[in-house]
Amino acid sequence: MMPGEQASRRWNRRILLERRPNGLPQISDFAADCVVVPDVDEGEALVRVLWLSIDGFMVGRLRAEENYTSGVQPGDVMQALAVGEVIQSRRGDRSVGDIVCGQMGMQQWYLDRGNEALWSVDPSAGPLQSALGILGVAGWSAYFGLLDIGRPRPGETVAVSAATGGVGALAGQIARIMGCRTIAIVGTEEKARIALQAYGYDSAVVRRDARFESLLKAAAPDGIDVYFDNAGGDLYDAVLAHMRVHGRIVVCGRLASAHLADTSLDIGPRDHSRLLVRRLCKQGFLVTDFASQFSEATAQLAKWQREHGLHLLEDVLDGIDMAPLGLVRNVQGQNTGKQLIRLTGTGEPDA
Amino acid sequence: MMPGEQASRRWNRRILLERRPNGLPQISDFAADCVVVPDVDEGEALVRVLWLSIDGFMVGRLRAEENYTSGVQPGDVMQALAVGEVIQSRRGDRSVGDIVCGQMGMQQWYLDRGNEALWSVDPSAGPLQSALGILGVAGWSAYFGLLDIGRPRPGETVAVSAATGGVGALAGQIARIMGCRTIAIVGTEEKARIALQAYGYDSAVVRRDARFESLLKAAAPDGIDVYFDNAGGDLYDAVLAHMRVHGRIVVCGRLASAHLADTSLDIGPRDHSRLLVRRLCKQGFLVTDFASQFSEATAQLAKWQREHGLHLLEDVLDGIDMAPLGLVRNVQGQNTGKQLIRLTGTGEPDA
Repeated sequence: MMPGEQASRRWNRRILLERRPNGLPQISDFAADCVVVPDVDEGEALVRVLWLSIDGFMVGRLRAEENYTSGVQPGDVMQALAVGEVIQSRRGDRSVGDIVCGQMGMQQWYLDRGNEALWSVDPSAGPLQSALGILGVAGWSAYFGLLDIGRPRPGETVAVSAATGGVGALAGQIARIMGCRTIAIVGTEEKARIALQAYGYDSAVVRRDARFESLLKAAAPDGIDVYFDNAGGDLYDAVLAHMRVHGRIVVCGRLASAHLADTSLDIGPRDHSRLLVRRLCKQGFLVTDFASQFSEATAQLAKWQREHGLHLLEDVLDGIDMAPLGLVRNVQGQNTGKQLIRLTGTGEPDA
Repeated sequence: MMPGEQASRRWNRRILLERRPNGLPQISDFAADCVVVPDVDEGEALVRVLWLSIDGFMVGRLRAEENYTSGVQPGDVMQALAVGEVIQSRRGDRSVGDIVCGQMGMQQWYLDRGNEALWSVDPSAGPLQSALGILGVAGWSAYFGLLDIGRPRPGETVAVSAATGGVGALAGQIARIMGCRTIAIVGTEEKARIALQAYGYDSAVVRRDARFESLLKAAAPDGIDVYFDNAGGDLYDAVLAHMRVHGRIVVCGRLASAHLADTSLDIGPRDHSRLLVRRLCKQGFLVTDFASQFSEATAQLAKWQREHGLHLLEDVLDGIDMAPLGLVRNVQGQNTGKQLIRLTGTGEPDA
């Protein structure tokens, strides 16, 4: 502690964007600082962040280009979804002890002024971090993306890219619950094993395998009805050739262009002809458009969790300073399961 | 007449594909021949072709690559939709004098063995050639493409490429009847004038105009809700940037890739990111998927024709030998209105 400071002062360690990535995000694109947690004024509540979520959308927020919501500016706290506990409150809608979830950023403390939508988490529903996974944005993305956009019917074939990632693993399991044949498209042999053994995919294909085309053909001899696409890029081009007439393509993520400073640099075959000839529907979606139905989805996901063993492996790193590493690992596909950061030593008063 | 031939023999002049086009189709890619019309056997009906339709889909049929239906092989009669009259019949479902429509090919006579689906035309509904335009495939394509795939709502903005072509002109007018603001995207100033004056578009933009981007922005300051796309290519890329959140893209045609021997050579920016960020739906469709609803569509199109002045300009060439020229003109956008070939001197017995 610095001389003259009050013993009760809390410190907030934060992860800032130092500069926009040149290529894939690096740990060195981020910096950390420490600021004093301000006093809680009327209309504010102080949240101690317990868990941070690392998500595919983060890469898009690092770019200067148009996105569906504001990006991160160099010098800003890096955005992240988080779960936390209300420690102090001078807001009518928050009580001390409440568990809340939402966009709180990569930091240990969050001052809730009502600027960002936080939602309440029922701590009896499961481990708190499941509000970031199976019972939160990952679960909702899989649920609405697969069911509303993909519209799978029993007996159809559903392929999922980034199939063992947070959203992908849930989309694959839900497709299986719906009575579909499921194909995992993954980056490594290790993930292929996880896809088959942990998530029950009917088959798994490694995207960098030289035999990719023939393996995918063998996995889907009659073609693919629904492609839940978290990747885009040339993997999309390859899968497109296997889509069946009247198939649906769910555009959920764009991991394959994570290395591009600007997505206009993402060049490849135009898919107009293929969409026309096979009468395909390709649709982008954002889970936040379905906010009014989140509680219905959460109830259904929890039911599948109990009755069908719907689950999500977690890959946990400890400490706020691990958050950039978590992001880098996630972008490079090095994580196994949903990437989470567990916050420890969260700047509690040290005297 | 050759010595020894019977005086009652009919001759059938046909247009054959001589070779697959190298670049845009040329007249020299086609040849003509003349064969004797065979006698009508049990289960057959002889149709005298009266009108041929020139359509955008023809270019796709000239390629060796996969399409939604069989293509034309070199040496084959070129495919074409046509209207004709039954002259002789030994089929229970056809009577002499019936007017029929369907895929009969570029030839003067068609022997109906029931291999291709022909449908009956009500000659009291309008001029016979309207079965190839407003009350036929062009009308149905505009109707189902715009309404089922585009799903326009009153007050929305609808842009149409190849906006004065057969399908485009009808799509634009139907969108206007639906209460939408309509934008024609056309190839020339002359067509811009036709779009505004003959078809009532609210604005018209010439795609090769150096100011295209700013003109489109001025025509759709709040963006485009529905893009009825007959072109694809880099025009699609440009329009995509103006699509509004939750917009719909109707993939109806691909005139912009008419010069490509293989549509895999159609390279450009991948649209994954834009579809995701703006939550767009891009869907290919084929009118034949809606066959069970054709009569309902025809009735509605006829009603709009009477009550709202729905119409289609015609660009008519005379004689079977003009069919390749019609196709070339259509691909190059040189026609004004629906390109039709009126058949004359159809090989009637010359003695």
